[in-house]
Amino acid sequence: MNAVPTSHPWQLARRAERMNPSVIREILKVTERPGVLSLAGGLPSPDTFPVQAMREATERVLRDTPREALQYAASEGYAPLREWVAAQMTAQGLQVDASQVLITTGSQQGLDLVGKVLIDAGSKVAVESPTYLGALQAFAPYEPEVTSVACDDEGPLPESLAQARGARFLYLLPNFQNPSGRCMGAQRRIALADEARRLGLAIVEDNPYGDLWFDQPPPPPLASLWPEGTVYLGSFSKVLAPGLRLGYVIAPKAMCPKLLQAKQAADLHTPGFNQRVVHEVIRDGFLDQHVPTIRERYKAQRDAMRAALEAHMPAGCRWNVPAGGMFFWIELPEGIDATALLPKAVELGMAYVPGAAFFAERPRANTLRLSFVTVPPAQIERGVALLAQALAPASAHSGAAALAV
Amino acid sequence: MNAVPTSHPWQLARRAERMNPSVIREILKVTERPGVLSLAGGLPSPDTFPVQAMREATERVLRDTPREALQYAASEGYAPLREWVAAQMTAQGLQVDASQVLITTGSQQGLDLVGKVLIDAGSKVAVESPTYLGALQAFAPYEPEVTSVACDDEGPLPESLAQARGARFLYLLPNFQNPSGRCMGAQRRIALADEARRLGLAIVEDNPYGDLWFDQPPPPPLASLWPEGTVYLGSFSKVLAPGLRLGYVIAPKAMCPKLLQAKQAADLHTPGFNQRVVHEVIRDGFLDQHVPTIRERYKAQRDAMRAALEAHMPAGCRWNVPAGGMFFWIELPEGIDATALLPKAVELGMAYVPGAAFFAERPRANTLRLSFVTVPPAQIERGVALLAQALAPASAHSGAAALAV
Repeated sequence: MNAVPTSHPWQLARRAERMNPSVIREILKVTERPGVLSLAGGLPSPDTFPVQAMREATERVLRDTPREALQYAASEGYAPLREWVAAQMTAQGLQVDASQVLITTGSQQGLDLVGKVLIDAGSKVAVESPTYLGALQAFAPYEPEVTSVACDDEGPLPESLAQARGARFLYLLPNFQNPSGRCMGAQRRIALADEARRLGLAIVEDNPYGDLWFDQPPPPPLASLWPEGTVYLGSFSKVLAPGLRLGYVIAPKAMCPKLLQAKQAADLHTPGFNQRVVHEVIRDGFLDQHVPTIRERYKAQRDAMRAALEAHMPAGCRWNVPAGGMFFWIELPEGIDATALLPKAVELGMAYVPGAAFFAERPRANTLRLSFVTVPPAQIERGVALLAQALAPASAHSGAAALAV
Repeated sequence: MNAVPTSHPWQLARRAERMNPSVIREILKVTERPGVLSLAGGLPSPDTFPVQAMREATERVLRDTPREALQYAASEGYAPLREWVAAQMTAQGLQVDASQVLITTGSQQGLDLVGKVLIDAGSKVAVESPTYLGALQAFAPYEPEVTSVACDDEGPLPESLAQARGARFLYLLPNFQNPSGRCMGAQRRIALADEARRLGLAIVEDNPYGDLWFDQPPPPPLASLWPEGTVYLGSFSKVLAPGLRLGYVIAPKAMCPKLLQAKQAADLHTPGFNQRVVHEVIRDGFLDQHVPTIRERYKAQRDAMRAALEAHMPAGCRWNVPAGGMFFWIELPEGIDATALLPKAVELGMAYVPGAAFFAERPRANTLRLSFVTVPPAQIERGVALLAQALAPASAHSGAAALAV
């Protein structure tokens, strides 16, 4: 009776054009091939997951408060968890009360909500160079014009913020940045907060890695220097486990109602079961014992990667030694394209993330990111040796098309 | 050194104006007052939560696959759960393969993702009258022009779809609709699917309540009648527990990549732990035993509410008896405003949801929604008696301002 239309019976929103498959995700697919040693994904070591504490906590939650844990819950999040976050932040120098804490489904959702509430189509958003790819993806559906500010080894140069004037916000990752590993010093934070305040430029401060310091904690957050202009994002993914998808947003009080409405529209609330389990795990100081064990492990792995890089990498490659976090950021000699090199590396049996995807503008093709947290030292050593082999001119012609995606 | 600006250092996106506090949420706050018997919220009875099965499943997941359950996972969702969903749908007449199933953080997230991918600012979206409030909230940030199509006791009239021509989609809740409780018959489904196909009008079919039938299952989904033009949303909230936040979207294959990219930008993935626990609970046919117990309970509660309405409600009130789901939809005599009446009802000790919020256009002030699933029969009886008391003309002048929010 009715002719089937030849095209689709739907029209995609304009923003859908901005959405693209994650480069990292496509790479992770390739690296799932057996035998590929991946230094690509930013996956925490599963050896750090507190499985026993989780088992005990889930058992207690399902024994003591199953009806509450399994029912619909408040969009703001579980009150005791919000209070825990507020107390933690206050101890770190950021005076926060629990009403400013919104629990999110991972800190990726925090990025989405911030984008939803602050970005109009065509409005300017400023980011670091390079910057976190997942943030670019979260903001993209809201159709911003993304601009990069000039950076050095500590992040944005304060004088570069003038370029960002009129932006809806400046997105920063001050602690052991993904992908560069860099950490912003105390003086730079003060200078940036002062300049942002002067310009009336809001800051979105993302801090998934701050607890993963190796020698000394990073300086206080920018939010503590300019609380009325900064939205702060935190996460339990790196100190407990990412599979729980628990993060939080701390916002100036006047912004909280809109973030909450956006949250409610997005998924009603973050799973109450997960929130209660995590609160049960951490309520009595568990992280004070647990996080130092993660730091110790990752520091040893950082050292293993540093040693491997020094031992194997050819002349002309550069890297900073990260003082925390999860990543080395490698600069290959000019003229080598890390994206073009990847199929060869995968063929040899290792994978990394090409750096180009981390740039909002003017990608630097000769960069790549290595994670040192996922696999133990022996595999780190082997992975770096394979990378060096891929870089060796002798084998420059072999390998191709392994990355069909 | 720097003057503190007098206004906020951020500018809200235009869409933030469209976002408003949920009426239901504000009402739930009021009804949390001790002593208020709430028939307002659509909260499943906690007596239906399969706590013991959950305990066993969490224990097995954390014993057998803790490293996988707690790690980052695929944005599409846990493969065995996607396969389970596909098999279930296929058994219900909708041929689906697992690649079309996207696991979401509750079906509310499904609504958000559909909005993100399909709605441009100013584009038309068609809904039922009344329609699910949460869907209106999910779509609002994408700034659609929402239009209502004419409905009767089965939902939209096929001839009314011409009004929706050019809309990005028609949003439907065919089974025991929230808020009206109505269910669409098989012939109406066929007529609507034919007309939508003829018009090239995509359908978004939301089905949170379909398993909660009392006498006979609802007819096959519209998606089975027009698979290439229908996006289907399902949920585990009503058959297991809402606090897990697990739902799914089933889309035509050509739309799947964009939904997946939107999902990834929104929260990377739904908690893998929750997905594995739920799969562990349901994999061996648990729902075949469990869901009938929910149906039986809710049918008895539906009967209790029906009897209470017949016993207590004054002349001039009308309602349909729902054949499944969670809600009665009451029409008060013309001229009575259910929103204005609510403070008095709360003062007397009961709460409901005024119907006006469920209309995208031309709200009908004399309607309200009652949930029969949250509390047992004795409380249903008392709640309805109190509602009748609030409606009694003798007490028409008392009570005020109890709802300050």
